[in-house]
Amino acid sequence: MPAKRRTKEYDNRPIGLFDSGLGGLTVVRAVREALPDEDVIYLGDTARVPYGNRSPETVELFARQDLAFLEKFGIKAAVAACNTVSALALPNILHEKHSFPLGGVILAGVEAVLASGRRKVAVLGTRGTIASGAYEHALLAADPRLIVRSIACPLFVPVIEEGVTNGAIVHEIFDLYLAQLLRDPPEVVLLGCTHYPLFRPALSQYLPKGTLILDSAAAAADYLSRLLKEKGLCAEPGRNGRAQYYVTDRTPGFERLARRFLDAGDGEVIDIHLADVVNT
Amino acid sequence: MPAKRRTKEYDNRPIGLFDSGLGGLTVVRAVREALPDEDVIYLGDTARVPYGNRSPETVELFARQDLAFLEKFGIKAAVAACNTVSALALPNILHEKHSFPLGGVILAGVEAVLASGRRKVAVLGTRGTIASGAYEHALLAADPRLIVRSIACPLFVPVIEEGVTNGAIVHEIFDLYLAQLLRDPPEVVLLGCTHYPLFRPALSQYLPKGTLILDSAAAAADYLSRLLKEKGLCAEPGRNGRAQYYVTDRTPGFERLARRFLDAGDGEVIDIHLADVVNT
Repeated sequence: MPAKRRTKEYDNRPIGLFDSGLGGLTVVRAVREALPDEDVIYLGDTARVPYGNRSPETVELFARQDLAFLEKFGIKAAVAACNTVSALALPNILHEKHSFPLGGVILAGVEAVLASGRRKVAVLGTRGTIASGAYEHALLAADPRLIVRSIACPLFVPVIEEGVTNGAIVHEIFDLYLAQLLRDPPEVVLLGCTHYPLFRPALSQYLPKGTLILDSAAAAADYLSRLLKEKGLCAEPGRNGRAQYYVTDRTPGFERLARRFLDAGDGEVIDIHLADVVNT
Repeated sequence: MPAKRRTKEYDNRPIGLFDSGLGGLTVVRAVREALPDEDVIYLGDTARVPYGNRSPETVELFARQDLAFLEKFGIKAAVAACNTVSALALPNILHEKHSFPLGGVILAGVEAVLASGRRKVAVLGTRGTIASGAYEHALLAADPRLIVRSIACPLFVPVIEEGVTNGAIVHEIFDLYLAQLLRDPPEVVLLGCTHYPLFRPALSQYLPKGTLILDSAAAAADYLSRLLKEKGLCAEPGRNGRAQYYVTDRTPGFERLARRFLDAGDGEVIDIHLADVVNT
């Protein structure tokens, strides 16, 4: 009965994604584009954003609470769509047993760099991510021959959140952080922050032709695609995967921001609920 | 014995100032310049910054905890060097009895506008402050003939915190928020955010000649000067007032930021301690 056996191979359980805030929605967008059959549950811990200012212990505690919340939905895989969690909490959490495979944006980004075959890498990220050295460490652990420079770009997030993604301000801010880098241009630029894919078009214009831009949103979608195939966890082809969004606080403007990160049209309904992850 | 009586009139107890974070240090700087004889205790609730995202009830609770912490130092007067507290918590707290007079940056700013005698006002502030309508409300309650426009400038704070206070980026960001305002220029611009005094030189160049710029830091220092004189609370002239700084968390870069807001020289020692306001 091959037909019946094939049906059994599909797994329509949702994928869980979480972030300290809303930036991780760029990962949801990339995942939904790459894997349209899959259901997605997103949790943004907007009540406690940003995690970047917290101690590693606190970030780990919050990440465990976020994962516990997602686990209730019977997820088949989870991705920390948050650089702070990926840097500070995942190294501990990954070593433990879970009922589902778990990945993070940093290792996904590192895999994308390795797959590119290029050696001269520049990582752009928030001050916290760059100060953690997590990308540099993971890249050099994966391939010690890589030449890695890391650049903190603290104004990228507020400018993106203000909806300014091209034009004179963006160009000036690129100059502020990247002018020095371009004296010795990298072959590949890894966007180590979930907000940064919104700067991708402006960065393509700004960086020298031929510079490869990799972002952790697309990289996480690639990671999930491979993972689901390898583990036989893919949803049934042709079904219309749906996304549900949870936030821990309805912070001012969160829906406007969510739409921006998801690139959602005005008429598109986004199903956002309030979550209580602490008392789960 | 007139000499003895005069000595008794001096009051060397400290002034208390508090803010959700470090921006209120611009108020400390203005107060220390205006009142060099006075001791100052500053509390920055860096563990819970920003207050702008919290409910009014939570902001009121935090403000009460901040005040209770300052009260332990036997302060003779307090100023909420925080626009969110001034907008959301002070209206309730001011009506209660305290062992010291209490003011806030919003009413200080409104008094400065009234004293200017000018009618056409533009208030610049964060999204939260402007959305609260607190300045507009207080200005029009004080003088209904004022013509008030309010402009949210969300990128001012992150750009100032990045240490960028002049040049092309600042000019572009002024254009983003203020170009429209200047089609019908105001007579007075009130800086309704404690960070904004650092933009004062660049704003003077950007705004039409003759535009009066008032900031809540200078206004709060004026308010305190008047208050201490009226109530006979001035410290002994010629003494060297000292400042003590408390933060609730040593967040990344807090000392660099503090130095910037205080305009402290490299060699200058800033006396920063860790405070526990919750378990006071």
